[in-house]
Parts: sequence; C-alpha cells; structure tokens
Amino acid sequence: MSTSQSTVTAIGVDFGGTSIKMGVARGAELLEVADSIPTGDYPNPDDLIGQIALKVRALRDHHPEVRAVGVGVPGLVDFDTGLVHVLTNVPGWVQIPLKQCLGELTGLPCAVENDANAMTYAEWRYGAAQGLKNVVGLTLGTGVGGGLILDGRVYRGSRWAAGEIGQMSIHYDGVAGHYGNLGALEKYVGNQQIAENAQRRYGQSGLHKELNLCTPKVIADAALAGDPIAQDIWEEIAHWLGTALGSIAWLLNPDAFVIGGGVAQAGDLLFKPLHAKVHSMISKVVAENLQILPARFSNEAGIIGNAAIAGDHVP
Amino acid sequence: MSTSQSTVTAIGVDFGGTSIKMGVARGAELLEVADSIPTGDYPNPDDLIGQIALKVRALRDHHPEVRAVGVGVPGLVDFDTGLVHVLTNVPGWVQIPLKQCLGELTGLPCAVENDANAMTYAEWRYGAAQGLKNVVGLTLGTGVGGGLILDGRVYRGSRWAAGEIGQMSIHYDGVAGHYGNLGALEKYVGNQQIAENAQRRYGQSGLHKELNLCTPKVIADAALAGDPIAQDIWEEIAHWLGTALGSIAWLLNPDAFVIGGGVAQAGDLLFKPLHAKVHSMISKVVAENLQILPARFSNEAGIIGNAAIAGDHVP
Repeated sequence: MSTSQSTVTAIGVDFGGTSIKMGVARGAELLEVADSIPTGDYPNPDDLIGQIALKVRALRDHHPEVRAVGVGVPGLVDFDTGLVHVLTNVPGWVQIPLKQCLGELTGLPCAVENDANAMTYAEWRYGAAQGLKNVVGLTLGTGVGGGLILDGRVYRGSRWAAGEIGQMSIHYDGVAGHYGNLGALEKYVGNQQIAENAQRRYGQSGLHKELNLCTPKVIADAALAGDPIAQDIWEEIAHWLGTALGSIAWLLNPDAFVIGGGVAQAGDLLFKPLHAKVHSMISKVVAENLQILPARFSNEAGIIGNAAIAGDHVP
Repeated sequence: MSTSQSTVTAIGVDFGGTSIKMGVARGAELLEVADSIPTGDYPNPDDLIGQIALKVRALRDHHPEVRAVGVGVPGLVDFDTGLVHVLTNVPGWVQIPLKQCLGELTGLPCAVENDANAMTYAEWRYGAAQGLKNVVGLTLGTGVGGGLILDGRVYRGSRWAAGEIGQMSIHYDGVAGHYGNLGALEKYVGNQQIAENAQRRYGQSGLHKELNLCTPKVIADAALAGDPIAQDIWEEIAHWLGTALGSIAWLLNPDAFVIGGGVAQAGDLLFKPLHAKVHSMISKVVAENLQILPARFSNEAGIIGNAAIAGDHVP
C-alpha cells in the first residue's frame, strides 16, 4: 500500500449489526450505492456472505473498472488472513473466513477490516485528516470506537484489537464498563449514558424528560436554544471525553483526532469545550500541531474507507 | 535498522540531570564503563559535550571495534536530526545540535534519543521483551517515563514527544500534574507521592513516620515483614498504575509492558496485584498474549539501550 498510488475503484461494504450497506467508491466519490441488506434476515453466515457476493457482482457488472472489495465488520478480524474471529452483535459470526469466502464467490481481491479502523482510514486517506502521519479516529455512538494510523500505517496491535478507546478508563474507581473495567469512557459518553445523565439532571431541576427524548440531537438543539442544563451536559461530555483524548495525546503525540458519529454532530457545542479541555491537559509541544477535527464523512465513511483499504491493497 | 543484523559494538551515553554515565556495550554485554561525569560541573553545553567527547575517544582507544555512539537525554530530541530541543532539568540545554557536535568531535556516527525510549529499546532488543512486536516500556521513579515499540519500531509521535505515560490521566477530576492535567498518573505513583501517601496513612493510624523514611524500598521491606499499611500501599499503587496500563492495553493491544525503575524493584509486591488489576480491566483477546514484565536491566539500561540504537543505525 502506498498513499501516492493512483486511486482504484473498489466496492466498500459496511457490515453493521442491523444492516449491511455497500457501494462503489473511487476515492471520496460514491459512484453507486446498493440497497442495504438487513443483517438479521440471514442468520446463517454462509447465506449472508452469499447475499453480499450477489450484490458485489451486480455492482461490478455496472462498474467493470472495480478491482477489489473491502468489508468492515463490527468486531475482531485478522487483517492478514481475513478471518473474522467474533462479531459480538451478530449471532453465529465466530471464526468465519470472510476474506476467503467472498474472494471465491466474487473473484475479486478482498480485504476485511475492523469498522472503526475503516472509518479512520477513510478520514486519513480522503477526509479530514488526509495525509497526516499520526491520526486517532473516534466514532461516538452507542459505544465509542477508535482506530489508529501511526507513522502512516494502520496500527492494529498484537491481536488486531487495538484502538478500543471506549474501554479506556477516565476514573480509577469509576463506572464499570462491559469488561468490569472501572471508569470506561463509553460508560460516560455513550448515547445511552448521555440520555440517562440528561434525564437525571432534568429530573433534579424539576424538568422531567422522557429518556427517549434525551438523544444527543435533542440535547444539542436545547443547548443551542439556550437551555443551561443542556449546555452543561455538553461541557461535561467534553470534560470526560477530553480527559481520554488528553491521555492519548500524551501517549501517542498524534497530529490529529478525527471524531465522527452521532454525538460529534453537535458541532461547536462539543468541539469548543473539547478543544479547551484537551489543551488544558497537554504541553506546548504535544499541542503544537494537534488538531481536533470533525469527521468529513458520516454514513458513507464505511463504504469509502473499506473501498479505499481494498483498493490500496490490490496486488 | 534491522534486528536481524549482527550486533555492533558501540558506546552508550546515559545523560542524566545529575550525572552522565557511559560505557562500551556489545549487545547486553558491558565491555567497559567509564567514570561518570557530574552534569552540574559543566554549565556550558559546549564544555559538557567536549567532556563527553573526550571520554568517548578514550573508550574507543581501548576498544577500536567501536563503530558508533548513542546518547540518551532526559527530554525532547528530534531523532532524525539529533537536535536536542529542551532538557527541562539541565540548565542551558535548549536547541543544542548534539548529534552534529558529538559526531564532529569524535568522528563516530552518532544517535541521540530520549532516555525512556532508550530504556525500552534495551529491553526490546536484548532484555525482558526481546523480539516482541509491540512493547510499552515504563520507568517508575521520581516521575513515570515511557517508551513505545510498535510494529517492531520505535514510535516517537509527531513531535518526538510520545510515551509520556506519567502524564496520562487516571481520574478526570484528580490531582493536577505538572501541566495542570488532572489525574496525572505520576502524581499518584511517583516516589514523592508514594512517600507522602505513606506518611499520611501511617499518621492516620498513629504510627508517625518521617517522609524521608517512606521510600519505596522501605515500604517494600515493611510489606514483606507483614506491615498491613505497607501492603495496602502497594495494592493502591497497583490499582492506580494498573488503571493506566489497562487503558494503554485497550488502546495499543501490546505484547508486553516492561517496567523498570526503583518502584519496580518491589517485585511481587507490585507485580502480583498489578497483574490482577490489569487483567480485571481487559478482554480475553487483549489479555491473550499480554505480559507484564520486570525490566532485565537496571542502571545499565541507558548505556545498553543507547549503544544498541547507535549500533543498529550504523550506515
């Protein structure tokens, strides 16, 4: 792989727990997007892979210049072999040789990557962090995912498990995460936690709100309309998230954080206090060329990132 | 640089704020150690570099097979140019072209590296973490230093400032570090903080101890002798340090942590609860091949690590 090579047209597959989105991309440009596949309609991995392959072949028929297919999955995958070890939220997906199967069914070179790595790759290759040397990508949603580009390459760790920013601790005696890990970041800034926290705050102030009304979008709109509780909630999210980013900045001294996902769509409400918080924690040198950037891509990040990875790895 | 190349004999210089130690090393073997130079005796950087060069030449006269010299400094250095940006604890050391000066004065290829990186390099190349792919090195002392080997190479970050584990936060509203960074790890597990914490605990229990008696060594001896307060102190250090290591494990999914410095000499008193704490925080996959290792080298780590870096970079 080299970032200087010419851009290859490839198919990107964004494999989510609910639906599978796919399309043809050339760099940042989406040439065609297929109808998505409801993941739950195909409980057997073989059937699901068959369905993906069907759509891949149809897309390639429309775009004969397609040279590769890349799939991003919500879980652990060995990038070298393309063996999916486990997808926590997709029943039956344990030790599935996805790269091999999809390659055989489509005749295309295939790459399989973790979804957060693919999002980070999209931003690094064609998005907000294009061409920077060291990039930390985050997606803020139900959980907090992350991906790392270090010294100009995807860093995956010893068991392909690197980048789990949501599991990092921001408090040694804090709220327990999914693994019993005290102070897990995503137990503070995940969508559900933001909603519960907002409901509690409104409750304390006598302004009861239903939990399902406390989405990041609603809290952002309230903050923009001048609601002091909502403004406070964003300050607090920035305090927690900024603590984790500050620690990562000390450890990795990156050029940029790129932040996507629903929570990031709050814009300045999040990014302004987050910038202040991170900069309150780091030295001048670490701050020197550190950028905290909103992601360029949103829903299409998976298609673009996975197509880019596959295209960059075409033999 | 390649770890497979044959071992070169080189001079390593361990440039500390108090003294400068140097010697000739071939791999893990120290062939000769020179008398150290008291750093404060040479307030002018040029004079100090001259003195180092004098000793380098004398060592090379005894060991004509020496092919390079490596210096590890307690601060920020551009590894590519060998320009020392700033040594916080050594007056006058700002923007000093150490690699160039020492190269000219000795006629030897010269490498200049951050001291924590050099310690980590020594352990990765010839010590406890030999040959592993992803290694996180820590030195526990007055402060907490760190170095990273990622994908088999030293990772230095965008401004050569990576690896500052002591500045990472373990509590979003915790004790402020040197940079105002709340919850800075070294404000919990640095020697001075351990001593103050021990004094406070003994005070609360009616057993007053003088601050200068609360060294890690004394607390370790007390714990081994069955003192429950001292045992508790080690549990607490492991709780704090383990929180940071757990976060780093989630982020980088390394093969090993290698821990050196005075505090690490407590052995099982530290390593047993630390192992338990870290493993209580991470997934099976991240834990799978994660080792938490005491450093092989102690005082000689700087000489060996810097000689190794210089030797591995001989053109």
